[in-house]
Amino acid sequence: MKPNVIGEILSIIPQERVLTDLADRYTFSYDASFGEYLPDVVVQPHTTEEISRLVKLANREIIPVYPRGSATSLSGGPLPVKGGMVLDMSRMNQKLEIDTENMLAIVSPGVLTADIHRQAEEAGLFYPPDPSSSHVSTIGGNLLENSSGPKGLKYGTTKEYVIGLEVVTPMGDVIRTGGKTVKNVTGYDLTRLIVGSEGTLGIVTEAILRLIPKPPSRKTLLAAFDRFEDSGYAITRILSSGILPAAMELMDQACIRAVENYQPSGLPVEAEALIIIEVDGHPAAVEEEIRRCEEICRGQGANTVTVARDEKERETIWKARKMVSPAITQMGPTKISEDATVPRSQIPAMMKRLRQIADKYRLNLVVFGHAGDGNLHPNIITDKRNEEEMKRVEDAVTEIFEAAVELGGTLSGEHGIGVLKAPYMEMELGPIGLDMMKKIKEAWDPNQILNPGKIFPEPGQTRVVLRQNES
Amino acid sequence: MKPNVIGEILSIIPQERVLTDLADRYTFSYDASFGEYLPDVVVQPHTTEEISRLVKLANREIIPVYPRGSATSLSGGPLPVKGGMVLDMSRMNQKLEIDTENMLAIVSPGVLTADIHRQAEEAGLFYPPDPSSSHVSTIGGNLLENSSGPKGLKYGTTKEYVIGLEVVTPMGDVIRTGGKTVKNVTGYDLTRLIVGSEGTLGIVTEAILRLIPKPPSRKTLLAAFDRFEDSGYAITRILSSGILPAAMELMDQACIRAVENYQPSGLPVEAEALIIIEVDGHPAAVEEEIRRCEEICRGQGANTVTVARDEKERETIWKARKMVSPAITQMGPTKISEDATVPRSQIPAMMKRLRQIADKYRLNLVVFGHAGDGNLHPNIITDKRNEEEMKRVEDAVTEIFEAAVELGGTLSGEHGIGVLKAPYMEMELGPIGLDMMKKIKEAWDPNQILNPGKIFPEPGQTRVVLRQNES
Repeated sequence: MKPNVIGEILSIIPQERVLTDLADRYTFSYDASFGEYLPDVVVQPHTTEEISRLVKLANREIIPVYPRGSATSLSGGPLPVKGGMVLDMSRMNQKLEIDTENMLAIVSPGVLTADIHRQAEEAGLFYPPDPSSSHVSTIGGNLLENSSGPKGLKYGTTKEYVIGLEVVTPMGDVIRTGGKTVKNVTGYDLTRLIVGSEGTLGIVTEAILRLIPKPPSRKTLLAAFDRFEDSGYAITRILSSGILPAAMELMDQACIRAVENYQPSGLPVEAEALIIIEVDGHPAAVEEEIRRCEEICRGQGANTVTVARDEKERETIWKARKMVSPAITQMGPTKISEDATVPRSQIPAMMKRLRQIADKYRLNLVVFGHAGDGNLHPNIITDKRNEEEMKRVEDAVTEIFEAAVELGGTLSGEHGIGVLKAPYMEMELGPIGLDMMKKIKEAWDPNQILNPGKIFPEPGQTRVVLRQNES
Repeated sequence: MKPNVIGEILSIIPQERVLTDLADRYTFSYDASFGEYLPDVVVQPHTTEEISRLVKLANREIIPVYPRGSATSLSGGPLPVKGGMVLDMSRMNQKLEIDTENMLAIVSPGVLTADIHRQAEEAGLFYPPDPSSSHVSTIGGNLLENSSGPKGLKYGTTKEYVIGLEVVTPMGDVIRTGGKTVKNVTGYDLTRLIVGSEGTLGIVTEAILRLIPKPPSRKTLLAAFDRFEDSGYAITRILSSGILPAAMELMDQACIRAVENYQPSGLPVEAEALIIIEVDGHPAAVEEEIRRCEEICRGQGANTVTVARDEKERETIWKARKMVSPAITQMGPTKISEDATVPRSQIPAMMKRLRQIADKYRLNLVVFGHAGDGNLHPNIITDKRNEEEMKRVEDAVTEIFEAAVELGGTLSGEHGIGVLKAPYMEMELGPIGLDMMKKIKEAWDPNQILNPGKIFPEPGQTRVVLRQNES
């Protein structure tokens, strides 16, 4: 980067928020996925105006701009793959207003999602999207990745709760999309186009989120099944009985064993599947529904069903699920975390395919996920220094994507495409579908300033890139 | 249109589905809004392949293409304002599949929305969006206009239920967007971009709709308020008590009187506001919630509150609301039906502005709407043959839009922009916001084939066009 550019950045942003030292820049070179890419400069903006001026400068000088929240992305969303400028949005966290009368939250992008949860609940309201990183991830990152968590089945995804945005466009202009009303059909839905665009179509500088009344009651159960298929039947029967649980989480045997191994708590390691079901709503409805869920699980062959009697027992149940990530992380130096998603009825078929793929490539595969919405998380435990194994991992990942698409599903349910899945876009979308997306990107960002190298495959890229550009 | 073009159309579509007679074309020259525009030809496709070929032909010959469902649009959505070809999509109604296991409906665009409601309910499922025209309007039209009806507050809009599409692009290619999973973050959300695009970005040839379990119980009440403000306080108190009604409908005094005049049924004509509240869900929850709604209404000054004791009484209550449209239609030869939407807390302020505007321009104004989501329907009863009054109507409509935007709302909550509101787009979106939308249109439809003359103002257009191009 030319010295005069740094000089110009310093005319926009005070020196203490412009990082050029190698050590500082290194801190911003990675996320929770793969690969390390050193940016030329890291800037920590506080205002929309600052971001607008930076993006205009970037257009003039053709410098890539990489917005970044807490960098919990599992797909490489914020990685500065082409160098340039990282925008550390985590400092832009001034606003968190709860508008109780209109049931809205108006937030700055750097606010932690868990803080929105807490403040909404204090006002008797509820923001349903709950990615498992919500205690550390920013709402801006959640929005741009449309990361959603366990409640997609009943409550929909993050997108369903974003009704308005302030955005700095790829050319550095400031626009507002949507507004404070749930209903708005004034022109194209730019709000929903930008949410989930992984920072390639705009930088969110403020968001208006729809809240709902906090469900007054909830109940949780844990059921263990000797046979994996039975857990699938139980899930389907519960849903067809008219119950819409807030969450239906699934853990396979490898996952149960990993958790039990990591922190022994008496989980049934002989079970092929554990499911956690949570229902919420009116207390009378919740009582009846959890009883019905228990009956159905037992009727479908669950050998143990535990219903939490109080909040403490509920936490114990959820702890099994929350230990999954740390437990897996401990199993090996490298974790490849996927989020292939299939129509719910195809979960048993997908699980079978996943086991076949793991056997074929002799890999350590653990599966858990959000069974209610078909969003599975196959995790491969490996070691990125083992070149030979990584080659098998790449082949396995390719087959996982192929299986998801063949079963009528999608490459990514909530982690985003980022760098890692870009080569597979055409497999799901076809050349024309992908081209329609590219046309939007090119029309809005002719200089390819915003988060370049993401979503769209580089020319000639046809497979997952787990071994390139690693430091 | 050149004779060779008609000849080529006839090589794609059999003669009995290609209408060129003046009388036939006249039948397709209008919708439920304003204005009449004669198309050059009306084509009734049955398949995606036929549409693809027609759109490719249209691109080669630069012929406007206007997709049309049942033409219940109140904003001019399907009007062939530049002549060319009308695609009558109502014949493309072959598919209506309910996938109970995945809780989906897979539908052709010409299927009536009411048929989806009925078939979903027979399977114990529920498709919440319910525009008041749903017994005659097609799902394709509903989707492209994102028309939603009374249940937006609790259940969200039409868009929240569309997870996959098959689309013929403006260039005549066929793409699939989204799929059968609620979670899908593989690239940009083209599904939600096309839903609500008013047929300017693609022609929907199949849609995958998300269904939910049918709520097992519902209860409905009608409350009459002497003072309009009190109805607003009641609505706010109900929502802040943690109850999320399925519908909260509002009628002002002019509306109550219009209905009572049209079909006397003992409505309280001295009341300033009537509200209808419906709660649904688990029977125990519903019982308790409707009782609580009744208490709140009484506490806020309702002088009568009627809770329906059975389905028959429920229908009587809803009849008052359903009579609104026919009652208003009878009040004068021309009805200008708006759908300006404001944040819920601004409903009282908006009602006041509406009354001031009606007084200022000496117009007959009736207001009803979906109070829960701030989506009001101010209707001006007038006569389009009265040039002088129509000028006042235009001024009043302009002020209604200004009021909605000033109060933090939007031009259109569910009717769409179409022809009538295009001149006001920049007022809400600003020049850059509008330009971002235009860039998508231009990138996808360089020949301006699909539904030209809609959403975007013509150069120099700055106000509503109620008097131009009328036959």
